[in-house]
Amino acid sequence: MIGILGGGQLARMLALAGYPLGLNFVTLDPADDICSASLAQQIKGNYNNTALLTKLAEKVDIVTYEFENVPAEAAAFLSDKTTIYPPKLALATAQDRLIEKTAFHDLDIDTAPFVEVNSLPDLKSAMDIVGWPAVLKTRREGYDGKGQAVLRQPEDLAKGWTSIGEVPAIVEGFVPFDREISLIAVRSRTGETAFYPLTENKHHDGVLRVSRARPNDAMQTLAEEYATKLLNALDYVGVLALELFQAGDRLLVNEFAPRVHNTGHWTQDGAVTCQFENHLRAILGLPLGATDAIGHAGMVNLIGEIPSSTAVLKISSAHLHIYDKAPRIGRKMGHINLMNQDQAVFEADLQTTLNLISD
Amino acid sequence: MIGILGGGQLARMLALAGYPLGLNFVTLDPADDICSASLAQQIKGNYNNTALLTKLAEKVDIVTYEFENVPAEAAAFLSDKTTIYPPKLALATAQDRLIEKTAFHDLDIDTAPFVEVNSLPDLKSAMDIVGWPAVLKTRREGYDGKGQAVLRQPEDLAKGWTSIGEVPAIVEGFVPFDREISLIAVRSRTGETAFYPLTENKHHDGVLRVSRARPNDAMQTLAEEYATKLLNALDYVGVLALELFQAGDRLLVNEFAPRVHNTGHWTQDGAVTCQFENHLRAILGLPLGATDAIGHAGMVNLIGEIPSSTAVLKISSAHLHIYDKAPRIGRKMGHINLMNQDQAVFEADLQTTLNLISD
Repeated sequence: MIGILGGGQLARMLALAGYPLGLNFVTLDPADDICSASLAQQIKGNYNNTALLTKLAEKVDIVTYEFENVPAEAAAFLSDKTTIYPPKLALATAQDRLIEKTAFHDLDIDTAPFVEVNSLPDLKSAMDIVGWPAVLKTRREGYDGKGQAVLRQPEDLAKGWTSIGEVPAIVEGFVPFDREISLIAVRSRTGETAFYPLTENKHHDGVLRVSRARPNDAMQTLAEEYATKLLNALDYVGVLALELFQAGDRLLVNEFAPRVHNTGHWTQDGAVTCQFENHLRAILGLPLGATDAIGHAGMVNLIGEIPSSTAVLKISSAHLHIYDKAPRIGRKMGHINLMNQDQAVFEADLQTTLNLISD
Repeated sequence: MIGILGGGQLARMLALAGYPLGLNFVTLDPADDICSASLAQQIKGNYNNTALLTKLAEKVDIVTYEFENVPAEAAAFLSDKTTIYPPKLALATAQDRLIEKTAFHDLDIDTAPFVEVNSLPDLKSAMDIVGWPAVLKTRREGYDGKGQAVLRQPEDLAKGWTSIGEVPAIVEGFVPFDREISLIAVRSRTGETAFYPLTENKHHDGVLRVSRARPNDAMQTLAEEYATKLLNALDYVGVLALELFQAGDRLLVNEFAPRVHNTGHWTQDGAVTCQFENHLRAILGLPLGATDAIGHAGMVNLIGEIPSSTAVLKISSAHLHIYDKAPRIGRKMGHINLMNQDQAVFEADLQTTLNLISD
């Protein structure tokens, strides 16, 4: 039995990938109507409820999580009672942008310039180091563009510091980038590692819209070098997503997520083994599955609403993945994977899909 | 909500394929510990319990089934209250070998010679028509070699008639065949049809052991012609498996199954869209998914026991599918799909897999 902290779409897709391996699942999640409800037992309650964490630990062989804001105390409590992967150190590192960026720096992994900021005067002096424009980011709990402020001119400093809530932060120099890319990496309990082909990503309003697999990309080797350093430094176990910017010949790491990742969803229909199955194989110490792409592949997120299944499924390269959530503006409701061995058909079908969701 | 009569491994795999489409499932099954239990609600009871059939009909939009021995009365009862696919006519035809073979004959679909047998004298005179050797088969409820007797010499006639229980039967001439093959076909409510590449099958003790996809097989066109006639004659909806023998240039139909089929399991990892998803698309009237193979593909059944996951998953082409059943001699416990775009690797991995299960 596998325990999952969080019962959202990532838990749902972990369960779907795990049943064929003979696994069963239980989630801990405080919410009603979670989208893994039909696929896993739910222990309903908060992540810091020690009675519920104990109950979870007693039911399972191993615990994993689908979001990186798992309270550190919950992870520590669980790790005394059972096995939790990815390891606590990865969680602690991913939860704090300063610790995370410092780890990259210490591992000689290239990043945009960054400086710690604990006050408005800190921010003012930091600008001399990182240069204009820059981005102010809370150290903790930001995601999808929240907890961030863009700084373009001196007047933005005080406004930005107020807007992020005057909490511990970092400021990062803005490097004009050519592409946003990500690397889905996986490391098993046995130390075995595997890497998917790089994914090229397009965001809109801070939310991922489209990913495309880019096998044989010129940046693959360097991205894998970065990921290998990080996986080993963290004694990592599971899937890890490394978010990167390419700026000319430079490859800058933005952040990592210690979990299966939206930019890896294309692997469900576009790779030999999907990221969800490989995450489970990794945490169980099973041999990792092949990560090769099986054709031209990509993904389009469905935000806020889902087009008709008929319209989607008549696109020959399309595979529909619905999360069974109540619709809400800005909510990730599902995604469409596209895979075709013919590049021209793939490109045309991707365009048809994009037209479908922009109607 | 989709209702499924039967909650075995086929129901389990239908559910796994259906969740991404946003579907939910309820089964009707009399057994404890069914292997779809974690993936679908279960109404527990017999298939002829009208109160339970009513309860099922009230919960669902549509009912399908995972085995062809659904009582005709249950199908009739359900079809008055909800939609049931594949249609009753397909069920009635598949349940009776005489009706089934007669249907093939009427559609000009080639079969071995067959004669109805209702008594030992019938059987004796039938032998003049079908020739020696021959196979005596009960009209109803035989599967995996049960309810059959091979007739090689005159002494076998009385023995065979007794062994099948002296029930209504047919006797079929034995045609020495070169290959056992099957065609997984699918027809939607809209009339759209699709066909997977032919599958070549090896049985052992009457139970399927190994299937291999055979794209571009010389018999594909004729097999599709047979299937098209049958699908249209039955006004069929869903996946249908046509079991065939090739004897020289002749392609003889043995029987059909009105459901997803063990010889189509390779499509889960070896085709663009698997048979389970296409069955659901068909019964819902959604566009059918592409049926192309994505590489060299095959399947090995796991009978009675499951090798260690570690041993299986270190085979690079292997995908493990466990049914979560208690082990029992002769029981289908799971299967291993193999897929590789490199033929030599596929062949080697298939051999490694076969060695693994024969240990």
